[in-house]
Amino acid sequence: MHTEMNLEEMKLFFLESSDEDFLEKAEFIHPVDILDVLHEIEEEEIVEKILNRFSDEQVALLLEFEEDEEKYELLTLLSEKRQKNIIEEMASDEIADLIEVLEEEEAQEVLEMLDREDREEIQTLLSYKEDSAGSIMTTEFISIRENKTIIETLNYLQTDAPDAEMAFYLYVTDKPGHLKGVVSVRDIISKPFETKIADITNPHVTSVHVDDDQEAVAELFAKYDYIMLPVVNDENIIVGIITIDDIVDIIQEEATEDIHRMAGLDEEEEVDGTVLDSLKSRLPWISVNMMTAILASTVVAKFSDTITAVVALAAINPIIAGLGGNAGNQSMTMIVRGLALGEIDDDNAKAIFLKEFCTGLILGLVIGTVLALGCTFIYGNPVLGLVAGGAMLANFIIATVSGFAVPLVLKKLGVDPALASSIFVTACTDTLGFFIFLGLATLFLPRLM
Amino acid sequence: MHTEMNLEEMKLFFLESSDEDFLEKAEFIHPVDILDVLHEIEEEEIVEKILNRFSDEQVALLLEFEEDEEKYELLTLLSEKRQKNIIEEMASDEIADLIEVLEEEEAQEVLEMLDREDREEIQTLLSYKEDSAGSIMTTEFISIRENKTIIETLNYLQTDAPDAEMAFYLYVTDKPGHLKGVVSVRDIISKPFETKIADITNPHVTSVHVDDDQEAVAELFAKYDYIMLPVVNDENIIVGIITIDDIVDIIQEEATEDIHRMAGLDEEEEVDGTVLDSLKSRLPWISVNMMTAILASTVVAKFSDTITAVVALAAINPIIAGLGGNAGNQSMTMIVRGLALGEIDDDNAKAIFLKEFCTGLILGLVIGTVLALGCTFIYGNPVLGLVAGGAMLANFIIATVSGFAVPLVLKKLGVDPALASSIFVTACTDTLGFFIFLGLATLFLPRLM
Repeated sequence: MHTEMNLEEMKLFFLESSDEDFLEKAEFIHPVDILDVLHEIEEEEIVEKILNRFSDEQVALLLEFEEDEEKYELLTLLSEKRQKNIIEEMASDEIADLIEVLEEEEAQEVLEMLDREDREEIQTLLSYKEDSAGSIMTTEFISIRENKTIIETLNYLQTDAPDAEMAFYLYVTDKPGHLKGVVSVRDIISKPFETKIADITNPHVTSVHVDDDQEAVAELFAKYDYIMLPVVNDENIIVGIITIDDIVDIIQEEATEDIHRMAGLDEEEEVDGTVLDSLKSRLPWISVNMMTAILASTVVAKFSDTITAVVALAAINPIIAGLGGNAGNQSMTMIVRGLALGEIDDDNAKAIFLKEFCTGLILGLVIGTVLALGCTFIYGNPVLGLVAGGAMLANFIIATVSGFAVPLVLKKLGVDPALASSIFVTACTDTLGFFIFLGLATLFLPRLM
Repeated sequence: MHTEMNLEEMKLFFLESSDEDFLEKAEFIHPVDILDVLHEIEEEEIVEKILNRFSDEQVALLLEFEEDEEKYELLTLLSEKRQKNIIEEMASDEIADLIEVLEEEEAQEVLEMLDREDREEIQTLLSYKEDSAGSIMTTEFISIRENKTIIETLNYLQTDAPDAEMAFYLYVTDKPGHLKGVVSVRDIISKPFETKIADITNPHVTSVHVDDDQEAVAELFAKYDYIMLPVVNDENIIVGIITIDDIVDIIQEEATEDIHRMAGLDEEEEVDGTVLDSLKSRLPWISVNMMTAILASTVVAKFSDTITAVVALAAINPIIAGLGGNAGNQSMTMIVRGLALGEIDDDNAKAIFLKEFCTGLILGLVIGTVLALGCTFIYGNPVLGLVAGGAMLANFIIATVSGFAVPLVLKKLGVDPALASSIFVTACTDTLGFFIFLGLATLFLPRLM
């Protein structure tokens, strides 16, 4: 429950409630809310005092919801004995997440708290590549045998089965653990007790490999509406499960990554990070952008004589480049997002190109005409109007064509389209926009003066 | 299973397999894959032929995964009798989704296929606001009573309980349906049969209201890692459930909306849509952008005399405006995404402002210095270098301050920050950037010539 008390009331409750009251109510407060309270408190002793009111199991659950970078800090507020007990309560993949962000020495300390078997399991988990299925899976799952009946299976679940995170589907395996099929818990609870597991097993079970990329796994969940998938190793032995709540986080992370990259930000810059982090995140793109701006500037400089003769060109220049840049950004955004969502393939690419081209052509005709009329009216020179309108039309076509082509070419080259598309598209619309506008103006110079 | 056959092989299988073969294998092909095959086929008779091999129940499931706009088209390929049978197999919220996108007359036809009770239920569903919890919930769920034992409940589930979409949690209600608590299926299958439901019921159940906005519901799921929530009406009577697979779609939609809006695109423009849709989506923002570009152009025009005297200014101009615009876009993107993810509040806003300001200051000093040195070197005039560098520094500060402030002000005014921020930020960096640069140049004009 997360709506009854506000942060201040919860803090008071954690610090001042009677033991009886605490025991009764605390278990119903969501770990996320408890962490919200703890994050507000600056004095370590108070955090420690509150943590000591919770059981080992409850603190283990808290750590599950805490940011990886903060887990260890929270844990080390407690006595070494409690630390050991809490770690024993944690799932191995949670311990692996905790260790992954620690310094060598701290990691060693945590590993030493574990018995040999657990330590080996965690070392296997730590060996999976970052952002692989193996690195996000949960290792606590239940497997059952197909030669049992429902009632035998229920008895097993009631007595011997290990704790498992979410048991909506149970995976059927042979003794060594080879994945044979899947049974829904719904079938187990709604079919007669004497039904054989084999009769309700779906042998066509989809699985992912430990080395699969998490983004591909997330796409699979999103496309097929899965809520849980088994993770297998090279021998098709089930080694973990991935549940959709982990996928939600990944989808949000991936969207943030794309949004950041399109704006030339590091994908991991945090809104409440340090100035140094922001500088590291932003300077690279600003530097590249400076190069392309200098390129555009060089084009303008080449036409100095034309500008000196007709200074109005300097005032119209930013309109041509600015509108072209924005039109290019619109096309590019459609394509980059479409690629991220898997909506563009070889079959429809041609149709999309045609649509972008026509859109650019029509936008260019409309805006170009408005600009031509405006310039004719303001500067009293219809040739200037035609030059500006023509350049605007050309730049809209350049914008939509490069907005379409750049992300696709980058993707073919193995570069993330979100990362670099806007640099190239802006470079095209700025540089070519200036070149065409000032070039046309130079051609028609006698009639502009 | 979705990996065994490719589209062509599946099409062949659907059309040419023996009835025996089809019966055995077809049920294990994922509806999403079947739809992929059907979408590839252009001849309606062939689609019809394939659909007629599937049972009513299977076609109902297909429709569940089909885009809302396409459901009716698929359905009407079949005989009226089959249409009626298939609709009877569908969940009421699925029927509501189907009807929602139909013309008045078609909707009437579908409603007439239903008996009175179902029709009334669907009309209630259709009355919920778009994008509300009521509009995305599933109405097929199981509720149980707390005075029963686990074995009694299992018997009920095996015999009388209605079909329910996903039963990971069961909601405990009294007879009129007031929400009393929640029981996990995991507890039901792993606790002794004689356990009372009351003993494993968590009375602190979180619920959402039918009128709650879907984005707020999605945030709740993401923050607390929920996988399922009950939806209640004003009387706290449970009327439906929302499961996390629906939330995944919403999170992706919301991310796409934000990405589109930041680029000045309509949130619903589709990458494979028509040219007309693209024009409608893009022209409004391009038009607004034209206004701001004209404003910037007017500023440049005011300084015609200065530019005629020192034409190098026209070449440096795009660097000042371009880099400022990009720095503003970086700040703005951080803030807009931070607001969307709920990472910015009154507590940390001041610290974030300071961070943005310092980042802008330092970036401005670095890039301003480089630009000053470059201009001094290229144009052989240190005063020109100082003017350009100073204007660059000022524009970086304007960029980060407006990138921070504009989204927050828009949010306070109730306007979506993703929608309009970039217009205002670009207007600031372009117009003020030109003004400061050309203004400084005019002040120091004698020393620039």
